[in-house]
Amino acid sequence: MKIYKKAILPLGFKAAGIASGIKKSGKLDLALFYSQLPAKASCQFTTNKIQAAPIKVNKEHLKKNKYFRAVIVNSGNANCFTGEYGLKVAKQTASNVAGELGIKKEGVLVASTGVIGKRLPLLRIKTAIPALTKGLSRAGIDKAKRAIMTTDKFAKEVTVKFNISGRMVTICGIAKGAGMIAPDMATMLCFIFTDASISKAALDKALKFSVDNSFNCITVDGCMSTNDSIIVLANGLSKNKPIDIAIGTNFNLFLKALNLVCLELAKMIVKDAEGGTKFIQIKVKGARNFAEAKKAAAAIANSNLFKTAMYGENPNFGRIVSSVGASGVDVKEEELKIKVSPLNRIDITVDVSIGKGKSYATIYTSDLSPDYIKINAEYN
Amino acid sequence: MKIYKKAILPLGFKAAGIASGIKKSGKLDLALFYSQLPAKASCQFTTNKIQAAPIKVNKEHLKKNKYFRAVIVNSGNANCFTGEYGLKVAKQTASNVAGELGIKKEGVLVASTGVIGKRLPLLRIKTAIPALTKGLSRAGIDKAKRAIMTTDKFAKEVTVKFNISGRMVTICGIAKGAGMIAPDMATMLCFIFTDASISKAALDKALKFSVDNSFNCITVDGCMSTNDSIIVLANGLSKNKPIDIAIGTNFNLFLKALNLVCLELAKMIVKDAEGGTKFIQIKVKGARNFAEAKKAAAAIANSNLFKTAMYGENPNFGRIVSSVGASGVDVKEEELKIKVSPLNRIDITVDVSIGKGKSYATIYTSDLSPDYIKINAEYN
Repeated sequence: MKIYKKAILPLGFKAAGIASGIKKSGKLDLALFYSQLPAKASCQFTTNKIQAAPIKVNKEHLKKNKYFRAVIVNSGNANCFTGEYGLKVAKQTASNVAGELGIKKEGVLVASTGVIGKRLPLLRIKTAIPALTKGLSRAGIDKAKRAIMTTDKFAKEVTVKFNISGRMVTICGIAKGAGMIAPDMATMLCFIFTDASISKAALDKALKFSVDNSFNCITVDGCMSTNDSIIVLANGLSKNKPIDIAIGTNFNLFLKALNLVCLELAKMIVKDAEGGTKFIQIKVKGARNFAEAKKAAAAIANSNLFKTAMYGENPNFGRIVSSVGASGVDVKEEELKIKVSPLNRIDITVDVSIGKGKSYATIYTSDLSPDYIKINAEYN
Repeated sequence: MKIYKKAILPLGFKAAGIASGIKKSGKLDLALFYSQLPAKASCQFTTNKIQAAPIKVNKEHLKKNKYFRAVIVNSGNANCFTGEYGLKVAKQTASNVAGELGIKKEGVLVASTGVIGKRLPLLRIKTAIPALTKGLSRAGIDKAKRAIMTTDKFAKEVTVKFNISGRMVTICGIAKGAGMIAPDMATMLCFIFTDASISKAALDKALKFSVDNSFNCITVDGCMSTNDSIIVLANGLSKNKPIDIAIGTNFNLFLKALNLVCLELAKMIVKDAEGGTKFIQIKVKGARNFAEAKKAAAAIANSNLFKTAMYGENPNFGRIVSSVGASGVDVKEEELKIKVSPLNRIDITVDVSIGKGKSYATIYTSDLSPDYIKINAEYN
């Protein structure tokens, strides 16, 4: 299993990026991903009760349809809280892409990220789509990965290659999110492409496990976006022996690779946290189950007092004690053990043992600095 | 019903404050409250799983005992996460006060606030208690209210006077908490004294209702302390017709007055929020019940993105939309209505309607500023 710290598209995938004028700055703001063969899709969307229009449209397409050919993504506008108009724009965008590529519109998935509650300019997108589709190429991933960014300081990209039954399989992922997992400017979007031949059930299972252990284990400010989306497309072009849930070894290999892609991208999001000066791993062990360990770790990670202490390199560990106690996890004072690595480094590890059982979990987070406030006080 | 913005002790109560040396600064750090007659007590403590030693001791005393005579409070040290030693100190402190006053030790309640995980110096407290008890007087409330402060910029105090069956009843409350409801420096402590004659059941019911509508409706950073305590003593010296739950009018009058005392103190805590520049009222209406309204309002109030937007006077209302959606309350985009008062004022009101029912709730909070981080990055 080989890891590459850049996006290398698997067999049969192309991408493109363009500046359509959604962003006033004139930066890249529209990305297109395309599979030459129909691909199976597995998706995970935000559980926020207010969901952006593209998510509603994707859910319809996933109900009606089994195979997908394209994903169109805009940055600079979340197309959320935009009512009927927003739905119309998302549907029309899928239609326009489908028309240009000669595929059916239900085979197109849609994603948006940016400010909530502003009308997405349909005409600009429509006008840009012909040039965008013409730009599709393997190298186009470089523009595409930048076209999905908002306040990100760097593009998040990773590729894993491995062998299944003598065939090389590639999983390539890109993501955006400036660490905040924030509702109106730093939505987490992730797009993963693979040429693996895999059943839909196995793909869903592998994605659920991988997301639970990666994107669902990062937090910067505890805010949940209306637009968070993870979309995986698998087109089977690697021609490996098809992976199914029943076939243990190959499934486990795929799972391990997908998990690695998700975890690397998730960590990059935390490292790009707005105003963040630290990369903090919070490891809770001694829990009765994974959920309990995660609950305790997340309570620490989301405590403003803990995060400001980390920023100030302030060994005020009472803040860890009270966060664990406030999490609702049934912990006893005499069973709670805490160890923190030296605070004058960028990478910090907090080890917590709650003395209940054998389960553990790790949450990745950043500190809270005055820059976080400066950025968010001014952004709109 | 008359409100006074200062602490005026009811009949039969005395107080004192002293600098015992717990605080290195030499400031007042030990307070004593005393009732000449045995008083009924009603208490509410933090639901944090890690509880400070004084809370454990109080729970024992409340089980064993029906009447109370004194409350001893120290600031500068939370006496929490201090194991057996901490329990010993809290018990010994109650004993020493009881010995000096000639009352039984189970009639003394205890409270602490300050840094977690440091040993509270028993000897200093013991040494200070004789002078502290000698200092007891009606005017002593002025020193006592300052002796419970940590990072508070001002003392929180309020008195309400009203008539029941021709007798004047007084409820006087003092509180500390620098708005953060924070685990290691700004624990919320509140002490309320009344000369009302009231049954224990009526007192408990009135306190629960009042706390739910005041202290449980404020949030600054969502952090829950290990030391939060609200203690009410009622000594009956007003000789009003005894208030019971069954006696509608008089109970409602007492409830109204107690609720007023709690709400005034709670608002003062938010106004003293560390680094806070705004006083924000978040009113959610159209909920199916009070709990649902409160859940939605608290989700907005605890969102760092919302709080930084308020600090920056930034009309980024998508942050309100996504917070409500993330709260778990089942809200629909087309039923969600948001109105915000002008942002360039100190007092800001956010009106949210979720279109489900007729219940409503108000949460009081502050904004999040770089000063919050500065204070907490450095404090230990």
